[in-house]
Amino acid sequence: MTDKPISRYPVPALPELPEDIRGRILAVQEKSGFVPNVFLVLAHRPDEFRAFFAYHDALMEKESGLTKAEREMIVVATSGANQCQYCVVAHGAILRIRAKNPLLADQVAVNYRKADLAPRQVAMLDFAMKVSQQAQAVGGADFDTLRGHGFSDEDIWDIAAVAAFFALSNRMANFTAMRPNDEFYTLGRQPR
Amino acid sequence: MTDKPISRYPVPALPELPEDIRGRILAVQEKSGFVPNVFLVLAHRPDEFRAFFAYHDALMEKESGLTKAEREMIVVATSGANQCQYCVVAHGAILRIRAKNPLLADQVAVNYRKADLAPRQVAMLDFAMKVSQQAQAVGGADFDTLRGHGFSDEDIWDIAAVAAFFALSNRMANFTAMRPNDEFYTLGRQPR
Amino acid sequence: MTDKPISRYPVPALPELPEDIRGRILAVQEKSGFVPNVFLVLAHRPDEFRAFFAYHDALMEKESGLTKAEREMIVVATSGANQCQYCVVAHGAILRIRAKNPLLADQVAVNYRKADLAPRQVAMLDFAMKVSQQAQAVGGADFDTLRGHGFSDEDIWDIAAVAAFFALSNRMANFTAMRPNDEFYTLGRQPR
Amino acid sequence: MTDKPISRYPVPALPELPEDIRGRILAVQEKSGFVPNVFLVLAHRPDEFRAFFAYHDALMEKESGLTKAEREMIVVATSGANQCQYCVVAHGAILRIRAKNPLLADQVAVNYRKADLAPRQVAMLDFAMKVSQQAQAVGGADFDTLRGHGFSDEDIWDIAAVAAFFALSNRMANFTAMRPNDEFYTLGRQPR
Amino acid sequence: MTDKPISRYPVPALPELPEDIRGRILAVQEKSGFVPNVFLVLAHRPDEFRAFFAYHDALMEKESGLTKAEREMIVVATSGANQCQYCVVAHGAILRIRAKNPLLADQVAVNYRKADLAPRQVAMLDFAMKVSQQAQAVGGADFDTLRGHGFSDEDIWDIAAVAAFFALSNRMANFTAMRPNDEFYTLGRQPR
Amino acid sequence: MTDKPISRYPVPALPELPEDIRGRILAVQEKSGFVPNVFLVLAHRPDEFRAFFAYHDALMEKESGLTKAEREMIVVATSGANQCQYCVVAHGAILRIRAKNPLLADQVAVNYRKADLAPRQVAMLDFAMKVSQQAQAVGGADFDTLRGHGFSDEDIWDIAAVAAFFALSNRMANFTAMRPNDEFYTLGRQPR
Repeated sequence: MTDKPISRYPVPALPELPEDIRGRILAVQEKSGFVPNVFLVLAHRPDEFRAFFAYHDALMEKESGLTKAEREMIVVATSGANQCQYCVVAHGAILRIRAKNPLLADQVAVNYRKADLAPRQVAMLDFAMKVSQQAQAVGGADFDTLRGHGFSDEDIWDIAAVAAFFALSNRMANFTAMRPNDEFYTLGRQPR
Repeated sequence: MTDKPISRYPVPALPELPEDIRGRILAVQEKSGFVPNVFLVLAHRPDEFRAFFAYHDALMEKESGLTKAEREMIVVATSGANQCQYCVVAHGAILRIRAKNPLLADQVAVNYRKADLAPRQVAMLDFAMKVSQQAQAVGGADFDTLRGHGFSDEDIWDIAAVAAFFALSNRMANFTAMRPNDEFYTLGRQPR
Repeated sequence: MTDKPISRYPVPALPELPEDIRGRILAVQEKSGFVPNVFLVLAHRPDEFRAFFAYHDALMEKESGLTKAEREMIVVATSGANQCQYCVVAHGAILRIRAKNPLLADQVAVNYRKADLAPRQVAMLDFAMKVSQQAQAVGGADFDTLRGHGFSDEDIWDIAAVAAFFALSNRMANFTAMRPNDEFYTLGRQPR
Repeated sequence: MTDKPISRYPVPALPELPEDIRGRILAVQEKSGFVPNVFLVLAHRPDEFRAFFAYHDALMEKESGLTKAEREMIVVATSGANQCQYCVVAHGAILRIRAKNPLLADQVAVNYRKADLAPRQVAMLDFAMKVSQQAQAVGGADFDTLRGHGFSDEDIWDIAAVAAFFALSNRMANFTAMRPNDEFYTLGRQPR
Repeated sequence: MTDKPISRYPVPALPELPEDIRGRILAVQEKSGFVPNVFLVLAHRPDEFRAFFAYHDALMEKESGLTKAEREMIVVATSGANQCQYCVVAHGAILRIRAKNPLLADQVAVNYRKADLAPRQVAMLDFAMKVSQQAQAVGGADFDTLRGHGFSDEDIWDIAAVAAFFALSNRMANFTAMRPNDEFYTLGRQPR
Repeated sequence: MTDKPISRYPVPALPELPEDIRGRILAVQEKSGFVPNVFLVLAHRPDEFRAFFAYHDALMEKESGLTKAEREMIVVATSGANQCQYCVVAHGAILRIRAKNPLLADQVAVNYRKADLAPRQVAMLDFAMKVSQQAQAVGGADFDTLRGHGFSDEDIWDIAAVAAFFALSNRMANFTAMRPNDEFYTLGRQPR
């Protein structure tokens, strides 16, 4: 545990928070054993908090042609490109757990082209990176490439939407200087 | 009116939509006289639609130290940098109306440094562009500059959050090839 | 009308100007109903004025395999990439008029890949952008692509030369802080 | 001498050329002992040739607060940044001759910050490079810096206009694959 | 342990290697408990191997005004910018051990500006990143800044030389697709 | 000859130097007629000097599928991209001599795509530039392209290793402000 600030902004105490937000935070704490700092930092603005997590859940928790691990790969790769410490460290931990692979997250964060991935997953990340870094150049040929790897158009929306949502998330984390919890660094590092 | 497609994805007919989404769309149609295509394009995914507009309203409709016109300046400047046709055209129209200025939106879209703005507003856009294009480099000195122009820390959050939200929005619009409604091009172009 | 300065440099009064330059300015005023500011700003340097407009006319007024509207597309797309407010606003108006299309200029200025253009015109703008932004990488394969779209080698020179001339023009406009006339913003916005 | 092509386009024979252009070419040949290829390559388009050299002379031959050598420094530094082989080699030779310095051109072409220049000349080139590479960001502070080095506003126009004109020239040379004459490589390399 | 290839090139077996190289490899194995793959991959070229490690040791093992942990910070930050998986993972482990800090390496790899560092160390990394990413712009002002943080000129050479050596190392690792040993991922992750 | 400093750091006098380094310097002086400044500048750090030149010789002096002139092409092209004055000027001279071509070095330094090279050599430099400027993106397709031009895998290592070594060398030269000897500028400029 560290006593370093987790945000440039005031972090509300749990009792000050609206009921629904406090409930959500207590639920995640019960499930994870700690409260990821993103919940505390964004609680500074309750309406934005609610929209942020509703969007997050709509993309990351739903049924999809992409596995949950694949969605986390998109988060980690694009957050690495955006130099977002919170998202790389926190979602790196989630990726290790969801992929049951202690190595993959660090590989993807630094250079996904050299990671232990299937060609289909590399194509997925090529596209996610294009949406993240130069969405203005996305065109029909990108869709054709992904369809050639077996992705449906709904899968393609999922890839793009996760990359787009974390374009928002990375900017909020970098702007607030959001600090990753110490717990994330070691989660999921033991081989299974 | 044009019959060009407004999205790479299917656009649901109003009767197919969930009640709350249909209601929202009918309300905007009544107020504006037409339905901005962003509502129809994003309605393809109801849960993401709800989160998107909840986030949008939490930032753009609330009370703020920034005027509504100033928030639209941030949208137009950062969307120009991201080459997002839908957002520049649609929010350019809103900026003309909110600023009661028929020239400002085109100026800001192309090069905000040369637009008819107060120095405080240029500083606001300098920071918004940094959040939009290289949030990883935001630091304490940026906050000091903005405070020197009279912005509170809550105003600074508003600037950053609008830039971050449209980082998401621009990517969704570019990825779906979202088409601006013809109506937006001429709205607010008459001097008052 | 605005009383904002139109240049960082002194703007000569018509009577002070050499006969030929005054004549040219009066002619454009008679034809257009106003004097585009580029004539007044560049008149600060008569010899450069003469060469500039001789070059302009040699490219933009001559017979060509490119329509006049197509040449304006090149101006608007490359000026958008160079963030040149004067050229985007002034030539956007000319493009609307020459293409008899009130929407096209704003589309091309922001992201020509998503504009209402024929594939041949997109290929033309891909090449114009390459000349504008990274001419050092132009090679034989670019010529082959354009020939495949039916462009002759003389057409290709026209595309490149317009992009190259506005590389100059954009820099002069940005450096002098050349202000677009208010009239340009609304010209050609009514559908025909 | 080499028999490599000097342009992707046909090069007219002298007798085919309009009188004034042939005259200009014969004059430069008499003065220099050879015809620089830029004259032959651009003669493919007589009207553009006339405008190009009128513009060139208006900037490079006139009286100015900048010496002729200083104007060539601007050409060489910005042409190096644009990877324009013709302009670096040809104007490198002219710079060696005008500055009576056999080393300076190669230094400036590669990295002007490390060249044997006065601080005033480095400031001149800092600004020329900004006009050449990101003119959209030029602002009042740049003018203040240059005035602090003793440049008048007319000198500043000269710096910017030379950088802007060679933005055009570099693109024409790169696009036509204009080949530097062998003679340029060795001109002015003997110390005086 | 994984059986994934550790290089695009053949990896020599220990008995095939020259005596001195085999000796070095056996020594590192005895000390570390495993052979870092960089030794095996580079052993494909014995002369380059010898020069590489002589250079490495001259910089990383010698007495310096920089601690060994500080030198590893430079490696990790610049290797992150160069997207070098091997160097980030392997030297991340060494940084955790040398700094006795299980969090620092991941922080520095993603965004050193937000890492748990002293201002002096941030200045050190600002300069290392400039040498790594745009050494052509290094100038006297950079030396002044570092001296203001208490670095001697010899310390500054050390910072630059480590950044320069890993510019080489990162390119060799990326080009050979050098794979980090699994052991590195978990080394030094337990708090002390 | 000039009396400008050749390094930001002290340059040792020959008698102060360790025997082996002094011997190497005297040998090069005897062979070339002067001492290239890189020897004097790097002698400030004897251990790094030894490793640097051992590495240099292992790549540049050995037998290879690349001619010595081809290896110098790689040095000149990548050093141009890195704006390294010392390496472009010094290795430009060596390239002129080794290729027996007085024009090639200046062509390659500015824009190798327009130089008098065989297609195989252009492919070699395309790859060298990728290793130099974005090694993280090197992949199997790059190897296939080079094999298609007849390069063996050992040749490819040579290309990459020369580009990587001069990534180090360019940064050391730019950081120390290493000055090219006046002699290099004119060496090899006479046609043979």
